[in-house]
Amino acid sequence: MIKVGIVGGTGYTGVELLRLLALHPQVELHAITSRADAGTPVSQMFPSLRGYVDLCFTQPDEAHLSQCDLVFFATPNGIAMQQARALLDAGVRVIDLAADFRIKDVAVWEKWYGMEHACPDLVAEAVYGLPELNREQIRQARLVANPGCYPTAVQLGFIPLLEAALVERSSLIADAKSGVSGAGRKAEVGFLFPESADNFKAYAVQGHRHLPEIRQGLARVAQQEVGLTFVPHLTPMIRGIHATLYARLERDADLQALFEQRYANEVFVDVMPAGSHPETRSVRGANRCRIAVHRPQGGDTVVVLAVIDNLVKGAAGQAVQNMNIMFGLPEATALAIVPLLP
Amino acid sequence: MIKVGIVGGTGYTGVELLRLLALHPQVELHAITSRADAGTPVSQMFPSLRGYVDLCFTQPDEAHLSQCDLVFFATPNGIAMQQARALLDAGVRVIDLAADFRIKDVAVWEKWYGMEHACPDLVAEAVYGLPELNREQIRQARLVANPGCYPTAVQLGFIPLLEAALVERSSLIADAKSGVSGAGRKAEVGFLFPESADNFKAYAVQGHRHLPEIRQGLARVAQQEVGLTFVPHLTPMIRGIHATLYARLERDADLQALFEQRYANEVFVDVMPAGSHPETRSVRGANRCRIAVHRPQGGDTVVVLAVIDNLVKGAAGQAVQNMNIMFGLPEATALAIVPLLP
Amino acid sequence: MIKVGIVGGTGYTGVELLRLLALHPQVELHAITSRADAGTPVSQMFPSLRGYVDLCFTQPDEAHLSQCDLVFFATPNGIAMQQARALLDAGVRVIDLAADFRIKDVAVWEKWYGMEHACPDLVAEAVYGLPELNREQIRQARLVANPGCYPTAVQLGFIPLLEAALVERSSLIADAKSGVSGAGRKAEVGFLFPESADNFKAYAVQGHRHLPEIRQGLARVAQQEVGLTFVPHLTPMIRGIHATLYARLERDADLQALFEQRYANEVFVDVMPAGSHPETRSVRGANRCRIAVHRPQGGDTVVVLAVIDNLVKGAAGQAVQNMNIMFGLPEATALAIVPLLP
Amino acid sequence: MIKVGIVGGTGYTGVELLRLLALHPQVELHAITSRADAGTPVSQMFPSLRGYVDLCFTQPDEAHLSQCDLVFFATPNGIAMQQARALLDAGVRVIDLAADFRIKDVAVWEKWYGMEHACPDLVAEAVYGLPELNREQIRQARLVANPGCYPTAVQLGFIPLLEAALVERSSLIADAKSGVSGAGRKAEVGFLFPESADNFKAYAVQGHRHLPEIRQGLARVAQQEVGLTFVPHLTPMIRGIHATLYARLERDADLQALFEQRYANEVFVDVMPAGSHPETRSVRGANRCRIAVHRPQGGDTVVVLAVIDNLVKGAAGQAVQNMNIMFGLPEATALAIVPLLP
Repeated sequence: MIKVGIVGGTGYTGVELLRLLALHPQVELHAITSRADAGTPVSQMFPSLRGYVDLCFTQPDEAHLSQCDLVFFATPNGIAMQQARALLDAGVRVIDLAADFRIKDVAVWEKWYGMEHACPDLVAEAVYGLPELNREQIRQARLVANPGCYPTAVQLGFIPLLEAALVERSSLIADAKSGVSGAGRKAEVGFLFPESADNFKAYAVQGHRHLPEIRQGLARVAQQEVGLTFVPHLTPMIRGIHATLYARLERDADLQALFEQRYANEVFVDVMPAGSHPETRSVRGANRCRIAVHRPQGGDTVVVLAVIDNLVKGAAGQAVQNMNIMFGLPEATALAIVPLLP
Repeated sequence: MIKVGIVGGTGYTGVELLRLLALHPQVELHAITSRADAGTPVSQMFPSLRGYVDLCFTQPDEAHLSQCDLVFFATPNGIAMQQARALLDAGVRVIDLAADFRIKDVAVWEKWYGMEHACPDLVAEAVYGLPELNREQIRQARLVANPGCYPTAVQLGFIPLLEAALVERSSLIADAKSGVSGAGRKAEVGFLFPESADNFKAYAVQGHRHLPEIRQGLARVAQQEVGLTFVPHLTPMIRGIHATLYARLERDADLQALFEQRYANEVFVDVMPAGSHPETRSVRGANRCRIAVHRPQGGDTVVVLAVIDNLVKGAAGQAVQNMNIMFGLPEATALAIVPLLP
Repeated sequence: MIKVGIVGGTGYTGVELLRLLALHPQVELHAITSRADAGTPVSQMFPSLRGYVDLCFTQPDEAHLSQCDLVFFATPNGIAMQQARALLDAGVRVIDLAADFRIKDVAVWEKWYGMEHACPDLVAEAVYGLPELNREQIRQARLVANPGCYPTAVQLGFIPLLEAALVERSSLIADAKSGVSGAGRKAEVGFLFPESADNFKAYAVQGHRHLPEIRQGLARVAQQEVGLTFVPHLTPMIRGIHATLYARLERDADLQALFEQRYANEVFVDVMPAGSHPETRSVRGANRCRIAVHRPQGGDTVVVLAVIDNLVKGAAGQAVQNMNIMFGLPEATALAIVPLLP
Repeated sequence: MIKVGIVGGTGYTGVELLRLLALHPQVELHAITSRADAGTPVSQMFPSLRGYVDLCFTQPDEAHLSQCDLVFFATPNGIAMQQARALLDAGVRVIDLAADFRIKDVAVWEKWYGMEHACPDLVAEAVYGLPELNREQIRQARLVANPGCYPTAVQLGFIPLLEAALVERSSLIADAKSGVSGAGRKAEVGFLFPESADNFKAYAVQGHRHLPEIRQGLARVAQQEVGLTFVPHLTPMIRGIHATLYARLERDADLQALFEQRYANEVFVDVMPAGSHPETRSVRGANRCRIAVHRPQGGDTVVVLAVIDNLVKGAAGQAVQNMNIMFGLPEATALAIVPLLP
């Protein structure tokens, strides 16, 4: 059994981790911390967990996290970097679902996240936890930086095109749409039901924190810098990301075959038949990315459609997938979930 | 392995059955029939099932259903009664998710459903598949009438009060609210997104088909006729039923203890702590009914709040629960699902 | 022209007042106050008002509200009672959209609202602003207590039955459902989109602040105390209240005629044809209550269905209606709005 | 008074026309036709119109449309072209809200709409009813082709860039998102609430009928052919279109000033301050397009965000705007509507 701790279990990624881990046959939930809600039964805050999770939230200093085999950080940005070293020193492996270890260039990270980094050396060590790119490094990693939700969808959609060097790398466009749970479980007027329902808008067109993360990932695949315009939008649904990706083809290719081959062995990436339009609900609750590739009117613009559940393949599910890899378990353990449709 | 057939797999109860059965360790899916969509891969109509269900829809006469151990009818009302006898005669057990076998008084059934019944004798044999009432009979049943969604929530909420003869039986009120999937997956203007979203309404106040079903169930528990006002409402959500039940207390009692004791051994009924307000999302995707009992201002009106997922405990999940009972499996097999929240 | 001030214009009742007043031909908007957002253009916070409202939010002490003919309080409970006396002394008439002046029994008010009342004598003077009951007193009032949203729908539905003394007064039931805007525009986790969407729940079953307000209103109409069970629910829509009301008939009557006659001269109450099910969207954005009355299966339980837009007839629209009455204008001035459907 | 007829009043553009025309001071509603619903009071189908529209639906041949001054066609594609000539010959002016007269190249129209055109000569005469482009021709027109919803948003967003010849014309991208009412009020499974809610998807990536319409409009403005990739998406809201437009700048310019100047005199186009993100609800129910222009990270990709209410500026509101122009009325008559927010 893997002894697991969760730091910051009161947000959406936290409750989603609990949903997945509660049924994981190799996991023993050791502790879930929350300063604000210590003492509260987890299942009181999240009645969906009644009968599945018996723990109470614990004060961080009473959680004895150093006794864990693995600690997930489901915290706001800037927390994991404060606590990771002590855990690693104690032999605990760490998966951070926030952004602290995602960006290798610490100066870039500090600019976009507006704080000084507490442990730049660990950034260098951390493995970016996108299994479809980095499975081998994840296997050995002590510290995994779980990718952001947008970056997961956008990278999985662009990777085959960039690996094959088929498209112009300077003019990539990612028009992405997210459900509101992507904003987290925090009290802000802008995400109230009456503000977000029956409404659609772009945001952060000037620059979103996931932009440098995506650029870094794509540059690695393309083996050179990429030019990317990234426009995120808020759409009135609870879960789901839909990335619509545009790139200019530089030469002809069988795009459908390209995508199918790239992901032939990836259990959590589903390349749909030619002509498909994946919908977000087709992955609701499941650790899966569905992708379709189009070339409208046979022109030189390729359009990739990629959907994920932002809380699963875009967060907690991918974290569990990484855990499975790190501990030598079958990668789909606890992740064989049929999406909830309708 | 239980060899299972599904008649009418293109509706919401059909796809929900498939979601649950796809991961059932003791079930082998033999055939899914649909006249209109024969030949279509199930996973083409429901991409959520890609990777989990490989079958195509089959013409009924090519499905060889008589080779099954169990056939589920996920059809409109009036279909199962045409086909059940032949299957039963062939030794196949049958669970009907529609209403054909729910009401013992055939004349009442014919009045409310507007058609002649094709096999009144089988109505007499059929067992009403509410495990919390009829577990033993279900175990032996050849033919199970799976309860309606509203009737499940309303009966589970009223049963403890009526069994204990605590309330006036002539003036029960059930104010029930359903998500739109309760109307089924059929093309009707009234259930279009722009008609149902951001809107709330009552319907069928003059009389809903679930009224006689509920009355029959409650009368059996009360051991006398009951007077029931039942007002269903349509609420802009996909899944979920919330029943708010009102009854007049005839004598004092510890209501919380009453409910807790009644359901102490029921794994799929969760009596919440005193003062709770169960929400439909706390059972989303799961085969569970959560109940809270209130006595506002200490008056003589008891208020019971009961929530289910109409497609799970209100339909497909309860059908799988019945199957498990019928075939001697642990009742929760394939039903240990943590609700999807948010 | 009526010189109008608004105190607390950043909530939903505030922006709704602005929507209605912006096109009112007899109103000159003098000032809108907000401590937190002073200096911000109103149309920056609410882009829907671009081109219609040019004002900025003002500090209360710079708003010169004593120069107004009328001041609306669209503030949290407890604010208007602090400021009303000075305005009244300066000859300004006041409409409070909060609860400060709604309940005549100050001790009851203080118990439910958890604070000491600042001016009990003004409570005595204040007129309860339900025009369908109190039109004449409103005409002369200096201080109007605009009714709550639930109380408006529930009272309009029960009034004909109680005035005619047709029903048992001790056992009234109001099962009410509200859109999320009823909770106001304040940052609380419970009203985030991912918490409220695709979800339905009751709340405050033990006792909601609108209970004493409704009881007071119904008792006045019934000319005796009434027994009322009031269960509010949260439904995933932006606007709208649906009240489902239950009462036990004590004698026979033509209910349809009763309701039609009671509201024959009320432009903002629409008694629908027998058998109707009013839906909330049929009044979206409009100052109207639609009502249908049913007697299911001809029994002795009468069911009344009443819908309003909680922000219009349940708040800002009713306030404008009251203003029109107070200033001798045609009651429908600026309120001739066709509901937005779909 | 303008005597107005509406052909096909049972869809969403029909009821929206009625909402707007009911309060139009210069319009007399003469007849609304519907074969299927002749005899039904309009306000029975659309209770929101109770008290505003007293007409019943009429059989087309009993509607005496030739007595009208203006007839709106709110019909499916292919109807107006059958009936327009007779009306024009009778001196009636016609506005078609469907696509029959939008595309000048009849062969292109016939290919995309899959039918033979009934009156190609009238196509030549018809004026494309985008007032911001064609105000003067509309003034004189007998026959106006009201633009599609997507084409309205996309053209208004691209026009300033193309008129100024600032961007590469061969690589325009329009990533557009529509609320579900854009699909019309017709019974189709795909637009049921449980199919469309909490879900997001692209559709018709291979080619949508609005593509040739947009291309034609942009080519006219650009005075040469344009290359356009157009990807429409379905988003779970009732009303609203959000167009996110991408173009490659060929030279530098003050984009904010360019847009502000282009639309300085357009009452129904609102260029928002630099850095804005217009949201669809900011135009809900109103005849307005709000636009913001961005240049992310100062690169050579310009991003234009344009929102409209698809049923108003994208259909019925624009039709009324065209009517006002055709009949010499102030353009905003009956269109001074404050958007409904929240």
